[in-house]
Amino acid sequence: MTASASGAKGIVYLVGAGPGDPELITLKAARLLREAEVVVYDRLVGPGILELIGPSAERIYVGKERANHIMRQAEINALLVRRGLRGQRVVRLKGGDPLIFGRGGEEIEALAEAGVPFEVVPGVTAAAGCAAATAIPLTHRDHARTLVLVTGHTKDGEPELNWQALCQPGQTIVFYMGHKALDRLCARLIEHGLPGALPAALVENGTLPSQRAIRATLATIAAEVERATLQGPALLIVGEVVAFADLAHVAAAAGALHHAQELR
Amino acid sequence: MTASASGAKGIVYLVGAGPGDPELITLKAARLLREAEVVVYDRLVGPGILELIGPSAERIYVGKERANHIMRQAEINALLVRRGLRGQRVVRLKGGDPLIFGRGGEEIEALAEAGVPFEVVPGVTAAAGCAAATAIPLTHRDHARTLVLVTGHTKDGEPELNWQALCQPGQTIVFYMGHKALDRLCARLIEHGLPGALPAALVENGTLPSQRAIRATLATIAAEVERATLQGPALLIVGEVVAFADLAHVAAAAGALHHAQELR
Repeated sequence: MTASASGAKGIVYLVGAGPGDPELITLKAARLLREAEVVVYDRLVGPGILELIGPSAERIYVGKERANHIMRQAEINALLVRRGLRGQRVVRLKGGDPLIFGRGGEEIEALAEAGVPFEVVPGVTAAAGCAAATAIPLTHRDHARTLVLVTGHTKDGEPELNWQALCQPGQTIVFYMGHKALDRLCARLIEHGLPGALPAALVENGTLPSQRAIRATLATIAAEVERATLQGPALLIVGEVVAFADLAHVAAAAGALHHAQELR
Repeated sequence: MTASASGAKGIVYLVGAGPGDPELITLKAARLLREAEVVVYDRLVGPGILELIGPSAERIYVGKERANHIMRQAEINALLVRRGLRGQRVVRLKGGDPLIFGRGGEEIEALAEAGVPFEVVPGVTAAAGCAAATAIPLTHRDHARTLVLVTGHTKDGEPELNWQALCQPGQTIVFYMGHKALDRLCARLIEHGLPGALPAALVENGTLPSQRAIRATLATIAAEVERATLQGPALLIVGEVVAFADLAHVAAAAGALHHAQELR
């Protein structure tokens, strides 16, 4: 007799793991990790967060490296459906927030289609985490009344970004990205009208002890980042607000010293 | 002898309280609330979250109602500086995330200027909270590669929103707002090129047991919201992704029933 035949009802929680620091996970996410029977997680979820998982839970790694997709999205969807139908209490743990560049929508669709109950538990998205760790206000009543979050990853066949709409004054733009496209990305932004002197910051491994951050301008940041040999998952923040990062004081705050070491 | 004269070093933590549900606060925010000597909080922070504050802490309410500002921003800044200089361990608790429409930037500037150490602790922003509670994916690889967060509050003398940049296809727009401007806001979006048939959802008291949500279109939502007499702080989500909200299954998930009752 399977669990579901016995009447036990499975459920899949799509849970945001936050920006990296295990203390930046929500109370609800921590509770669900303790209670889960199965945790399905990917590459952006760090070891400190995995320690919150209960000792008896099954752990399934479905990490997606760009060049080496361990499991395709369709297989992940099928896995979640299968475990939910089996009557299990599943946590699908995703870096940041599940519905902001997390492809949570596709997992929801698959679960709904299969009739598997689910619930989404939001998380601190990387933009908020990296901004906090560098004291960059993402909005500012004089400088940025709009905050635009964009994926910097582009694949063949996907629609081009709307560069004209992106390249407007009075807003902050945050790109969720790797490093590969940085020089091309900055060139396109300048080409479409943003000033080369506009402040820009790249934050790598934001909120983790390994965080590194570089502040420069749109025209210079790609070269600065290359010189500093940053390589991890990164966020690019572009806009006047980047000039407001108060690094001396962030550094002075207890426990935050590592946050600002390289931000200059 | 004051605390600061004795060598004790004050610190001000700007802490995001998340979207409303007390379980959606971060582990770090919960710890800092337990340890704080003073907690300065405003209207968007609910009673469940205030219960996390340690019993001996002083609580200072600086709630800002639109019509009745109890304390102006400059006074809040001065209060934080004063308590920090006095050597106290202060938590400045703000709804959502401190650096996304939280005016945290202004508080950081004041603290930095006065030489008071500070640290920013990010929170789950209202957009992520409301999206999770209604299962609306904010980004979608086919429908929305860009997510735009905008404040719907406008004051005399503040710059107009860039309507042309906002009214682009292929993105999701989230307005942090009250209800007052809803009809005018939707009219401007249609006027600047968004289709009247574009799906839109208004979420009131998102993630709280009192959550109510209305799904309609840009052309009809203001009337629907008026008919439903919604009145609390609300978020407006506009874009193709709103059509993906899977309400039946959200409702089926344990504990999430209230989330979708009125979303239709």
